[in-house]
Amino acid sequence: MIIEVKRNLSENEINALAEKYNAIIVTDRNRNLLVSSSSLKEIEETGYEQIEQHWVFDNDMQLSSRKFMPQTRNVNIGSFTTGKDESIVIIGPCSVESEEQIEQTAALIKENGLTSLRAGCFKPRTSPYSFQGMGIDGLKLLAKMREKYGFSIVTEVRDSTHVDAVIEYADVVQVGAKAMYDHGILRACGKARKPILLKRGFGTTLQEFVQSAEFILSGGNANVMLCERGIRTFETKSRFTLDLCGVAYLKENTNLPIILDPSHAMGYAYGVPDLARACMAMNVDGLLIEVHPDPSVAKSDASQQLNHTQFNELIQSLHPIAKAVGRNIV
Amino acid sequence: MIIEVKRNLSENEINALAEKYNAIIVTDRNRNLLVSSSSLKEIEETGYEQIEQHWVFDNDMQLSSRKFMPQTRNVNIGSFTTGKDESIVIIGPCSVESEEQIEQTAALIKENGLTSLRAGCFKPRTSPYSFQGMGIDGLKLLAKMREKYGFSIVTEVRDSTHVDAVIEYADVVQVGAKAMYDHGILRACGKARKPILLKRGFGTTLQEFVQSAEFILSGGNANVMLCERGIRTFETKSRFTLDLCGVAYLKENTNLPIILDPSHAMGYAYGVPDLARACMAMNVDGLLIEVHPDPSVAKSDASQQLNHTQFNELIQSLHPIAKAVGRNIV
Amino acid sequence: MIIEVKRNLSENEINALAEKYNAIIVTDRNRNLLVSSSSLKEIEETGYEQIEQHWVFDNDMQLSSRKFMPQTRNVNIGSFTTGKDESIVIIGPCSVESEEQIEQTAALIKENGLTSLRAGCFKPRTSPYSFQGMGIDGLKLLAKMREKYGFSIVTEVRDSTHVDAVIEYADVVQVGAKAMYDHGILRACGKARKPILLKRGFGTTLQEFVQSAEFILSGGNANVMLCERGIRTFETKSRFTLDLCGVAYLKENTNLPIILDPSHAMGYAYGVPDLARACMAMNVDGLLIEVHPDPSVAKSDASQQLNHTQFNELIQSLHPIAKAVGRNIV
Amino acid sequence: MIIEVKRNLSENEINALAEKYNAIIVTDRNRNLLVSSSSLKEIEETGYEQIEQHWVFDNDMQLSSRKFMPQTRNVNIGSFTTGKDESIVIIGPCSVESEEQIEQTAALIKENGLTSLRAGCFKPRTSPYSFQGMGIDGLKLLAKMREKYGFSIVTEVRDSTHVDAVIEYADVVQVGAKAMYDHGILRACGKARKPILLKRGFGTTLQEFVQSAEFILSGGNANVMLCERGIRTFETKSRFTLDLCGVAYLKENTNLPIILDPSHAMGYAYGVPDLARACMAMNVDGLLIEVHPDPSVAKSDASQQLNHTQFNELIQSLHPIAKAVGRNIV
Repeated sequence: MIIEVKRNLSENEINALAEKYNAIIVTDRNRNLLVSSSSLKEIEETGYEQIEQHWVFDNDMQLSSRKFMPQTRNVNIGSFTTGKDESIVIIGPCSVESEEQIEQTAALIKENGLTSLRAGCFKPRTSPYSFQGMGIDGLKLLAKMREKYGFSIVTEVRDSTHVDAVIEYADVVQVGAKAMYDHGILRACGKARKPILLKRGFGTTLQEFVQSAEFILSGGNANVMLCERGIRTFETKSRFTLDLCGVAYLKENTNLPIILDPSHAMGYAYGVPDLARACMAMNVDGLLIEVHPDPSVAKSDASQQLNHTQFNELIQSLHPIAKAVGRNIV
Repeated sequence: MIIEVKRNLSENEINALAEKYNAIIVTDRNRNLLVSSSSLKEIEETGYEQIEQHWVFDNDMQLSSRKFMPQTRNVNIGSFTTGKDESIVIIGPCSVESEEQIEQTAALIKENGLTSLRAGCFKPRTSPYSFQGMGIDGLKLLAKMREKYGFSIVTEVRDSTHVDAVIEYADVVQVGAKAMYDHGILRACGKARKPILLKRGFGTTLQEFVQSAEFILSGGNANVMLCERGIRTFETKSRFTLDLCGVAYLKENTNLPIILDPSHAMGYAYGVPDLARACMAMNVDGLLIEVHPDPSVAKSDASQQLNHTQFNELIQSLHPIAKAVGRNIV
Repeated sequence: MIIEVKRNLSENEINALAEKYNAIIVTDRNRNLLVSSSSLKEIEETGYEQIEQHWVFDNDMQLSSRKFMPQTRNVNIGSFTTGKDESIVIIGPCSVESEEQIEQTAALIKENGLTSLRAGCFKPRTSPYSFQGMGIDGLKLLAKMREKYGFSIVTEVRDSTHVDAVIEYADVVQVGAKAMYDHGILRACGKARKPILLKRGFGTTLQEFVQSAEFILSGGNANVMLCERGIRTFETKSRFTLDLCGVAYLKENTNLPIILDPSHAMGYAYGVPDLARACMAMNVDGLLIEVHPDPSVAKSDASQQLNHTQFNELIQSLHPIAKAVGRNIV
Repeated sequence: MIIEVKRNLSENEINALAEKYNAIIVTDRNRNLLVSSSSLKEIEETGYEQIEQHWVFDNDMQLSSRKFMPQTRNVNIGSFTTGKDESIVIIGPCSVESEEQIEQTAALIKENGLTSLRAGCFKPRTSPYSFQGMGIDGLKLLAKMREKYGFSIVTEVRDSTHVDAVIEYADVVQVGAKAMYDHGILRACGKARKPILLKRGFGTTLQEFVQSAEFILSGGNANVMLCERGIRTFETKSRFTLDLCGVAYLKENTNLPIILDPSHAMGYAYGVPDLARACMAMNVDGLLIEVHPDPSVAKSDASQQLNHTQFNELIQSLHPIAKAVGRNIV
């Protein structure tokens, strides 16, 4: 249940109510909200004088629900705002590998009139014997690109030991598929004010996915976006299975902006253009596409990154699809 | 391996070769082909004088492979042909329920300038206590619509006890997700000359799916189309998970036309329009969409069928997407 | 809902009631039952005089439910009866390949004091270019073994074109994982009186699985056994994933005997002994284990069949486990 | 590749080799090992004089492979050692809730002659509005039980913000299904010397699971045990699907001890006894079973915990199964 308390309540009164209902206090645009478990369905008769309004839910998707806030949240990434008539195309390599590589990516972004750069510095590899990312040095290279070109920087936090550094350097903090249950990260993101791009775990139900977002929202950060990037199924010809039915569900039921990642879902560059067009046709707030100056030498995810020529062709074909669903690409 | 034998070979010589290589004889546009297991990788030195050419494969996707036939197969449904610059939108209710219902559907098809009508008569229900379809009476109603309006009729075979009746009445024989391993059906379809629309089982790998098509192709019917309609995954908010990554794989590797069914994948009408647009953006040969004059009273799949108003809105939005990928809708 | 009608009702009255409730008439040990959809929750006040008793259900698992019949069904396979204190171990090769091979298997069965022989004659292969089974000739070889040794013969029906032949020759009709939705087969099995061993499809929910059994039960054949043989999951190191949690569910909720097949689940001989012991520890009515005189030359499923030495070791280790859960192996 | 260097090499020489082969240095029982990616297949001709022996692998399961170390690792939990003829049954509630509750559990453990107590203090809940565990206070209660009764304490780390505290208080550090990709935790566990019980993520392949163990092993901690606790599949009647086929694979291919958790897999108490017996019949090093003095009031996982009476019955039935596979329960 979400309870909006009356404006004239003192801090003590609010705290007392929060304790009574076993609720988390969330401040949302000058309103004080108490968010308790969705198993709470009724408030006491006598309690109504302290309460402005309240919302009852079927499950713990509460602050994220369109029942609570019907319109899609407006999250700002540079001059772009979600929930309006633009769609953001965020590109870049899987990993920051060198300044030269990132400069080439920056040139591609500029050429195509885009505004955001993504690349990983702390790679959540499943093997200890693979490249683990450039770490802080990578973050510094990304920051340099921001200063030089004005791009928004999207980069990933892997675990809570370096979450503060990522929050400091990034414009959008990406929480990866393997980190999205990490309470240490979710709590740090809740305290931050930067936009959070929360990726769905490949074994994660939509319910759990949105509940992870609730950790951040109830922690006080209203700027959460969801990213579907493929789930694990029995099919092995593609790396994962992009769940657009799930996207339809999220769009219908939650107020969270949605960014789609066809690259990780497919795992092979040949399928990315068709899937990227399908993602754009879903009428979502943005796409995340892996692009590398020379995918054949990439230190991670070599098979799924587009080269620059392939991306230039793709972006041309995305514009009319975006237009067909009432969007402009930025 | 596929072996194309020299034109001057006698029937006896061809039969002898087929026996030698444990192969199925397939006649393909005046060529005699011998199709053996893909585990056969080499032919005897001395055998080359009887052989025009041969193709070696990694797995049993052979006649369906782009390695054998690079271009997408041209299958005719009325005046529409797959593999060209048109995309067919096939609509209709889950089940034939009455003449009035089918007449209303026919009016909707005509209104929108479409050419095909789909509806089931033999329903593969998972419960014996549900509506099982109108059977032959339904087929007759569909045939009546063909005569009256010139529509192509797409209808489903459930098991091999009535496969001959469906082949007789239908213009396109749909083999459903639960029937696609049925050798009785696959063999009957192989002997027929009508187009076959083979749906992927919800627990079926892409490999097995295409191998089912190989049963029909090697049976002598070259007119096979594939239909992705959602696979079963851990996610339960939607009925199935539409596998567009799999579609990208099929487009890249097989010469079989592809028709997509967003209705069964989603299971809920609210998600169908977004998904239908995404399917069209995948640049495929067609869509299959469930539409019912009044879904609330439908005898099967009530929740996922669009009403006519919803469909009229959807089709308007599909045209610009089709155009963006170089297609016209018929 | 299941309605047991009063014994004094005439055939006309029963038929009238069946029509009224849209029910299937099932005769069960001298009782006339009307089985309607589980969505029917109430009968009319005035109807009680015609009715002995009735059962209401949450879903279409009705005749198979322990709510209707609390004890496990007694199905006879030769002198063995399910639902008691014996467990049957049914062995044999994947496919009948030759008389010699089947004779070797028969010797192994006899040696170990077992009573049943399983082998397939109509193989539901996923590729048209693989061995498809010996067909009727195989059935005749199996029948010969029954005559010679008194074994019960368990063999599989692939599609409804040969279902009558399998019903005629077999002692237990196995309906395979790919055939279990086939209405043609399910209806023929419903009219038969022989025991049916229904295998779970690898993409089939427990709900659908039991509903397939309901087709046979409501068709009039009370002798249905369930066989779990692995479901398809994201894990590819084994061929399928044996679902023993599902077995726990079936044991708790249904009255259907359960036979487990560790061979198909694992797909590799090395894992079969451990899994067979785990299956026996689940306290079920029996096991199905693939054994071949020389797996390396088997025409199908070569990797998962035990050789005779391996089986002799396994069966020794199964006895104390069976004993620990109160069973004797036959 | 794993390279064992000659004993007479200086630290500088070892470091130079590690850099050359891009390898991690691991000290294993007085041997210096260099562990590099499995993509390294050959060493230079001239390098052999510095090398004692080396092992080549198909994939990044290296230190954990039976190819490197054929016998199961001996990990000590109190007086119990894995890889021998005992099996440990570790019980306790999902969460530490109060001293009284933990005392009742302790009494049950003592009564049944068991030696280990498990309970969670940092709960990895998927909703922010659920009970999150007692934290450090819970750890202190568990430590008290160790002092009082001599039990080994098994408790879970949720994220890297409190990993040091858990390592300090626990005898066995459990890394949960949602935390097993967490590099912060894995690295801290690699530096620790305590036994680590690594749970498989419910969306995690066996390959990734074992690679997570490689993070700990290559970090220098040889004491890693694996825990299968159910994977997420399409089946929803049970909470997860216990993957015993996967266990057969792990036993065959890795040298890591295995502990099985039937409680989380099933999610319902009624199925736990049958599954626990099946787990024991798999001949593994131990079981983890959730037991609560009164499951109906448990603050987490209420549905799956056995009460004490149920557990007393279960443990009686486990002894003969353990015996049948050559084990004693401790």
